[in-house]
Amino acid sequence: MQKDLKDRLADILEFTREKNPLCFQITNYVTVNDCANVTLAIGASPAMADEKKEVESLVNIASSLYLNIGTINKRVKKSILKATKKANKLDIPVILDPVGIGVSKFRKDLVDNLLKNYKIAVVRGNISEIKAILNVSSKSKGADASFEDLENIENSIKLANKLAKKYKTVVAITGKVDVISNGKEVATIENESDDLPKITGTGCMCTSLVASFCGAKKDMIFEATVLGVLTMALNGELATISSKSSGLGTFYKELFNKISKFDRAILLSKAKINLV
Amino acid sequence: MQKDLKDRLADILEFTREKNPLCFQITNYVTVNDCANVTLAIGASPAMADEKKEVESLVNIASSLYLNIGTINKRVKKSILKATKKANKLDIPVILDPVGIGVSKFRKDLVDNLLKNYKIAVVRGNISEIKAILNVSSKSKGADASFEDLENIENSIKLANKLAKKYKTVVAITGKVDVISNGKEVATIENESDDLPKITGTGCMCTSLVASFCGAKKDMIFEATVLGVLTMALNGELATISSKSSGLGTFYKELFNKISKFDRAILLSKAKINLV
Amino acid sequence: MQKDLKDRLADILEFTREKNPLCFQITNYVTVNDCANVTLAIGASPAMADEKKEVESLVNIASSLYLNIGTINKRVKKSILKATKKANKLDIPVILDPVGIGVSKFRKDLVDNLLKNYKIAVVRGNISEIKAILNVSSKSKGADASFEDLENIENSIKLANKLAKKYKTVVAITGKVDVISNGKEVATIENESDDLPKITGTGCMCTSLVASFCGAKKDMIFEATVLGVLTMALNGELATISSKSSGLGTFYKELFNKISKFDRAILLSKAKINLV
Repeated sequence: MQKDLKDRLADILEFTREKNPLCFQITNYVTVNDCANVTLAIGASPAMADEKKEVESLVNIASSLYLNIGTINKRVKKSILKATKKANKLDIPVILDPVGIGVSKFRKDLVDNLLKNYKIAVVRGNISEIKAILNVSSKSKGADASFEDLENIENSIKLANKLAKKYKTVVAITGKVDVISNGKEVATIENESDDLPKITGTGCMCTSLVASFCGAKKDMIFEATVLGVLTMALNGELATISSKSSGLGTFYKELFNKISKFDRAILLSKAKINLV
Repeated sequence: MQKDLKDRLADILEFTREKNPLCFQITNYVTVNDCANVTLAIGASPAMADEKKEVESLVNIASSLYLNIGTINKRVKKSILKATKKANKLDIPVILDPVGIGVSKFRKDLVDNLLKNYKIAVVRGNISEIKAILNVSSKSKGADASFEDLENIENSIKLANKLAKKYKTVVAITGKVDVISNGKEVATIENESDDLPKITGTGCMCTSLVASFCGAKKDMIFEATVLGVLTMALNGELATISSKSSGLGTFYKELFNKISKFDRAILLSKAKINLV
Repeated sequence: MQKDLKDRLADILEFTREKNPLCFQITNYVTVNDCANVTLAIGASPAMADEKKEVESLVNIASSLYLNIGTINKRVKKSILKATKKANKLDIPVILDPVGIGVSKFRKDLVDNLLKNYKIAVVRGNISEIKAILNVSSKSKGADASFEDLENIENSIKLANKLAKKYKTVVAITGKVDVISNGKEVATIENESDDLPKITGTGCMCTSLVASFCGAKKDMIFEATVLGVLTMALNGELATISSKSSGLGTFYKELFNKISKFDRAILLSKAKINLV
């Protein structure tokens, strides 16, 4: 079973590098460069844009649509809604990163609107963000998960299942241990790195990876999401090892080295995934 | 005295890494990623946003507010004014980086408005920018200081004092030698690196560091500002040494390595600070 | 002849590092940081801004104007037109990067407007983008050239000549082999790197280099364009060699190392340029 899953993930990884799917990303201006680079590093093709007049054209040629509200504003909100409507019409998977949803009603309303009125294939967030979506009290601080929220894994699984069932979506909660649920199956990933939270955008990049894999295999959204989360966690772990405590500059460089070299053999030998 | 100052700075550094203050940054899209990463590297937590509808919510949870006009536009100008008003009301320190103030009346008017009608805790700029604020003739070119302005240190001290007194603020003029004044005390920093001006955003990042420390210790704004400027100058110096003339790619990597590893021992042994 | 060209290019390179021209760049928020850094690394001075109220002031002090439509929106479109009008009036060279022109009518209309109604000194794009300008059918996908379009060099030369003559401009088509034409002279560059297309923004950065050199030598636009394209191709080649298959993180670091160290001796010994 476990073996089977790893093999399927490795298939998706190789298929993505071969197929080079176009992943249209409406995202924030903080981490957008890293999101584009991680998309390229995994073998997909990024297209970043946010003008309302052209988002439909971009959805038309895209294999997946990635939405990230990290620096959302009123103008881009309209582009997001228009693009999502089009993606739903064309049956292109929409992957949502609810960055910092806890910081304002403006963000919460947009995420609620997206989840209630559109088909969202995947939601990827930290535990504080997932709690905010579910109106569970949390002490989210900006875009980072609060320490209080980094609690036991059983609670994360419960929340992931709840959200997945509520909106018929796949939910990924990333943290020390990552949890992915489609409401029926649940996977946890135990690869980890203390350095990942010290670099901005590793969450956003993780979602870009999920969107890249979903673009390649839209009939395997759960597996594509597990693979996206695994790619960041496992390569973060390897990057921490090879950067040998040199500091965050070296870790950042190694992270891109490892992701660009990620392949079947590394996945099969290093992935720590459990189906629970 | 000098020893005392260094110890106090080391205390702030350690306190910041422990307290992890949230620093809300309304900044430009050129260097925003580096600003977020340097904030994380020093142990604070960055939140980047600029939508008028949510800036008050963000100020509400922030420990400091960082304003940077590097790619300012009419929309974000309104967000800046709204956020600053709120920060003043809540007594949260506001740190201003008047990037490229000399290039347009639009920038000059905004900075004048901020300094005249709001409480600004710190202004950090290069000598050309500080001159532009004071209406002293200068040959500022874009965001970089002009060669003509990189003159004697006595003049920088005079200008820093003048601006500090005029607006009851702390002023940092960064350059080969850095000058920090609160109108009474003046510190100079002699750590330096020829590579720092060759990387975009080292000024913006320096101000993010100042804002991070101000967020941790809002009753010690002068010291927090000295520490922010020192962190960039000293670690730039160390990064130049360890990059061994490999080029700007290696210097950039080393800069983040050094800042992420910066601690009391390094500060006490390497800082070249004078109270004048 | 070939020797002469290389010497002239080396002269422009040295002159640029000495003169430090200000290159005003209205560009996208994906690769803007790399564009600013590459401008600094080659010895020019970048100024990034897009507010309509100040673009004329910036053109006034600039030596060249760089336009990039990578994340274009309605607001910035107006700023681009205003800045270009002013640059034409002041006889400042305008360098255009038609990023992803094939993805929407919005982009195509803007590029057509610029080429038909303004003086554009240089257009730099990949083969898919150049085809889209000429209404030649292509399978452009997002901002990357489609595989189908990476065809024989003779066709690229034909298209570059056609576009150059049509709008009395210099055209650079970058790819495995790069082609630069002013409608009379044609240069090809055979330095190459498989890693360059795997990093986002190497096209945008290449155009920043072209704009930097055009700012230094506006009476030698053809040579400045050849030098800009050569700088990226040759240093990409060197970076691939020195990164020794470590991965894209190391390649990125090495790319900036090499560009920042690029000088006459390296150019004369490593450049693979042909006049055809």
